[in-house]
Amino acid sequence: MTTDDTSSRPTYPTSLGTSDAESISLLGRDLARDLMGEVGFGELAMWLVTQRRPTQSEVRVFEAVLVALADHGFTPTAIAARLTYLSAPDSLQGALASGLLGGGSRFLGVTEDCGTFLHEVLEGHPEMLPADLEDDDRWDELARTAVTQAKSAGRFVPGLGHPVHKERDPRTPRLMQIAEEEGLKGPHLRLFEAIGRVHPEILGRRLPLNGAGVCGAALADLDLPVELLRGFALLARTAGLLGQLAEERRRPIGMDVYLAVDRAATYVDPAEETTK
Amino acid sequence: MTTDDTSSRPTYPTSLGTSDAESISLLGRDLARDLMGEVGFGELAMWLVTQRRPTQSEVRVFEAVLVALADHGFTPTAIAARLTYLSAPDSLQGALASGLLGGGSRFLGVTEDCGTFLHEVLEGHPEMLPADLEDDDRWDELARTAVTQAKSAGRFVPGLGHPVHKERDPRTPRLMQIAEEEGLKGPHLRLFEAIGRVHPEILGRRLPLNGAGVCGAALADLDLPVELLRGFALLARTAGLLGQLAEERRRPIGMDVYLAVDRAATYVDPAEETTK
Amino acid sequence: MTTDDTSSRPTYPTSLGTSDAESISLLGRDLARDLMGEVGFGELAMWLVTQRRPTQSEVRVFEAVLVALADHGFTPTAIAARLTYLSAPDSLQGALASGLLGGGSRFLGVTEDCGTFLHEVLEGHPEMLPADLEDDDRWDELARTAVTQAKSAGRFVPGLGHPVHKERDPRTPRLMQIAEEEGLKGPHLRLFEAIGRVHPEILGRRLPLNGAGVCGAALADLDLPVELLRGFALLARTAGLLGQLAEERRRPIGMDVYLAVDRAATYVDPAEETTK
Amino acid sequence: MTTDDTSSRPTYPTSLGTSDAESISLLGRDLARDLMGEVGFGELAMWLVTQRRPTQSEVRVFEAVLVALADHGFTPTAIAARLTYLSAPDSLQGALASGLLGGGSRFLGVTEDCGTFLHEVLEGHPEMLPADLEDDDRWDELARTAVTQAKSAGRFVPGLGHPVHKERDPRTPRLMQIAEEEGLKGPHLRLFEAIGRVHPEILGRRLPLNGAGVCGAALADLDLPVELLRGFALLARTAGLLGQLAEERRRPIGMDVYLAVDRAATYVDPAEETTK
Repeated sequence: MTTDDTSSRPTYPTSLGTSDAESISLLGRDLARDLMGEVGFGELAMWLVTQRRPTQSEVRVFEAVLVALADHGFTPTAIAARLTYLSAPDSLQGALASGLLGGGSRFLGVTEDCGTFLHEVLEGHPEMLPADLEDDDRWDELARTAVTQAKSAGRFVPGLGHPVHKERDPRTPRLMQIAEEEGLKGPHLRLFEAIGRVHPEILGRRLPLNGAGVCGAALADLDLPVELLRGFALLARTAGLLGQLAEERRRPIGMDVYLAVDRAATYVDPAEETTK
Repeated sequence: MTTDDTSSRPTYPTSLGTSDAESISLLGRDLARDLMGEVGFGELAMWLVTQRRPTQSEVRVFEAVLVALADHGFTPTAIAARLTYLSAPDSLQGALASGLLGGGSRFLGVTEDCGTFLHEVLEGHPEMLPADLEDDDRWDELARTAVTQAKSAGRFVPGLGHPVHKERDPRTPRLMQIAEEEGLKGPHLRLFEAIGRVHPEILGRRLPLNGAGVCGAALADLDLPVELLRGFALLARTAGLLGQLAEERRRPIGMDVYLAVDRAATYVDPAEETTK
Repeated sequence: MTTDDTSSRPTYPTSLGTSDAESISLLGRDLARDLMGEVGFGELAMWLVTQRRPTQSEVRVFEAVLVALADHGFTPTAIAARLTYLSAPDSLQGALASGLLGGGSRFLGVTEDCGTFLHEVLEGHPEMLPADLEDDDRWDELARTAVTQAKSAGRFVPGLGHPVHKERDPRTPRLMQIAEEEGLKGPHLRLFEAIGRVHPEILGRRLPLNGAGVCGAALADLDLPVELLRGFALLARTAGLLGQLAEERRRPIGMDVYLAVDRAATYVDPAEETTK
Repeated sequence: MTTDDTSSRPTYPTSLGTSDAESISLLGRDLARDLMGEVGFGELAMWLVTQRRPTQSEVRVFEAVLVALADHGFTPTAIAARLTYLSAPDSLQGALASGLLGGGSRFLGVTEDCGTFLHEVLEGHPEMLPADLEDDDRWDELARTAVTQAKSAGRFVPGLGHPVHKERDPRTPRLMQIAEEEGLKGPHLRLFEAIGRVHPEILGRRLPLNGAGVCGAALADLDLPVELLRGFALLARTAGLLGQLAEERRRPIGMDVYLAVDRAATYVDPAEETTK
């Protein structure tokens, strides 16, 4: 809040949407003339966050990430959204919000955790960064340092391992390839790739680089703020949840899920349990 | 829920995301090979809802709508999201959800209400539909019927009027133009346009066709289900809220808004009020 | 917003919480001295809404309603809250909010719908109200009118019928009894009871008066605003959801529910479906 | 999930609500007969979480905490709830959820943080616990250890300091007194009190023990799980938010808050900002 001298009223600065009787601006552009029909939705989403118009290469990588994260079938969040829609069909926003609220540390957090982890490694070891981005040996060295430190600290390395895709997550090589095609395979993706190469020698077993992790690395290489990476996963998931709710309208499963759980309920006497 | 004969276990059908150890599918396609890098995010969002891959023309109109609806500055929902982020910075999903929950009947509902209204008029008067889409006289006739009926019923015509853009909402002609360019100016947009021409003779004053309304008409012309139109406004708004929260991180206003309200609080004795 | 003359700044009136460096007030009382330890939580909740301190009789009926509505086992909302907690265990508020968002028209709405229905019948037929509250014949007459009108309009009578308690919902006679004991069996409860007596002769079958409905009637007899009755169901449910989440911590089922649904997923080709 | 032998279907155990056609049980009791009218709402909330019926002394302390936390006037969460209600008046559950989502680390988290901090200190130093609960010297010694360790680790001591009540938070002595009256001033409250005595000698300045902190200490002394303490603050706040929304219906401020912010918006060119 700043105050101007004459009136000492607060003013609230913004670089996003403003309007007057004649025009509507967004990001300093005329919304109707310069943005509608001229700018894609993914492009606008990046621009809104970074305040800089992205290149088409950046948009392709960004949208590939959103596509990768949009829907993973009957996840806990998709089921929660469908059950909420069943209970309150009058409030689509409530069902969407209910689904997004599962976008926390566990299921959707890997993207953010991985981007943040890579970012901290890069920030923390400026002296180890390769002069030549393609110098894989130097990346491997940094990756060894990072994995070893995580192991010593008893921390997991985010982005390693997947409950279903135990061998290989097909999203990972594909996103690497797209970033490469667009000239956007930067330090975060390269470090992540190096972690994929060196971790077995340190951890004693080979785990796949998972899709949520590579998405976090790619978003970080797009210079998006790592504190907000979860937000892009949530944006992607909003589209996925819309798909889930549209399907719930066409061919509902919410009532059957509810009944299957309710009918399988068995009462346990709390008195018995507390004596355990 | 259907049951197969041998086990009588429930099965839950879906046409969205599925996966096994080797592959990840979405909408029956290989996610990594066929969708990532090949399909835009707006395109995927439409596809997820309609189960049909949209054309590039459809995507352009659809994304123009999302761009139009993404951010309108310091709306109540943007302020709510910023205040929630101030209180709970550990939960970005909570701040986004808080903002989306304002996407109800009043501020974000016009898009859905307008699409639904136009849809019902078209469904309710099959005999009045012009054989030739460009027959403006027939559209005007249908529009007169619709506005007259709404007036008699004491209902507002959704999409008419705007608190700020009292003369003309610049998004309306622009979206009409984009739809026309793409060959997608269908019955909903034409009826809406006709309402813009004829309503003054029935209502006694001229109101602008607003941007939220034209977006609803355009989405309905894309054959998107009218019951879910609010959902697309919410998808657009998710990107806008991410922009708001990114700005709140860079240059916060939430604390100042809170303090401005809190300091202007004045206590009113409930006893006095209840005697009124 | 009102402005005072000297500064033309906005002021925001409130009769709820205020504070200064020395004291904290709520509802015009000193919070620490007059309320903490002196006023029950249910009592405060009523007071906050009505701005009037309730009697102990009113509190007993009110809390009986909250107790009746607090938890119904594995409802869709309880399952949604548990799944959200599974996905985002870092955000208890998100799991609670996710569960409350199912408190809409379908599962939690009966309380509000029933209270509102009874209220409208009473407001709409002042000439039919019995002079003597205990004149059951007059209540039956009004009930016949109300049920007949609902039937003609093709509307359901809220509060009639229950998917499980097909004969008799045990909460209904109990709440009637408690209200009677406290001298608070007012017009809403009496009309509801009369609907229970007369509806079979009009609808052709006997349905139980359900617990959600009688709760709405009791809350309306406490002079609580009918537009907010859903809010009391949500307050009750907040306690129930806390119980669900505490149990989810002790003995989780969320992961098993998720896996049971996910493993029972069967892919349906959208192309096949759209040809249907 | 356990499976019974004959069918290998999952079963979901619960000790909360269950029902059949004739009866409704909660916590193993007959809901209508044993709980409605017999058990208070705060009492039930404790019972639901702990699976043990609390004593009347415990209920008095518990409800004093809920009363203390219910409403603090125009907090960010109250404003967010009012703005959401303004935007979506059709969805009371959305407005409540929006307000609760601000119950995170910053404004509502102190209760949980303080309870957790005290709990960890007690668990971490079993050898320092006084044999006699009233041995203030021993508590002071433990408090000195805890504050010194927090200071060395660069951590704040939760529950110390308040932006408004800089000298003394009136809730703190009052809750201490109530707990003492009920014989429930246990180790958490005594350690907290000791922190209030000894911290100036370590931190170099005197800060008040705040109300949110003492509430966390009191809840922990009631043996409520420290991981869920935030949940009780949220339950209390649900009642407060209902009061806020009832007042917003009677005498709205949401639109004025929105307009005050919107009118004070000033556009900042992002290009200029990024050059900074």
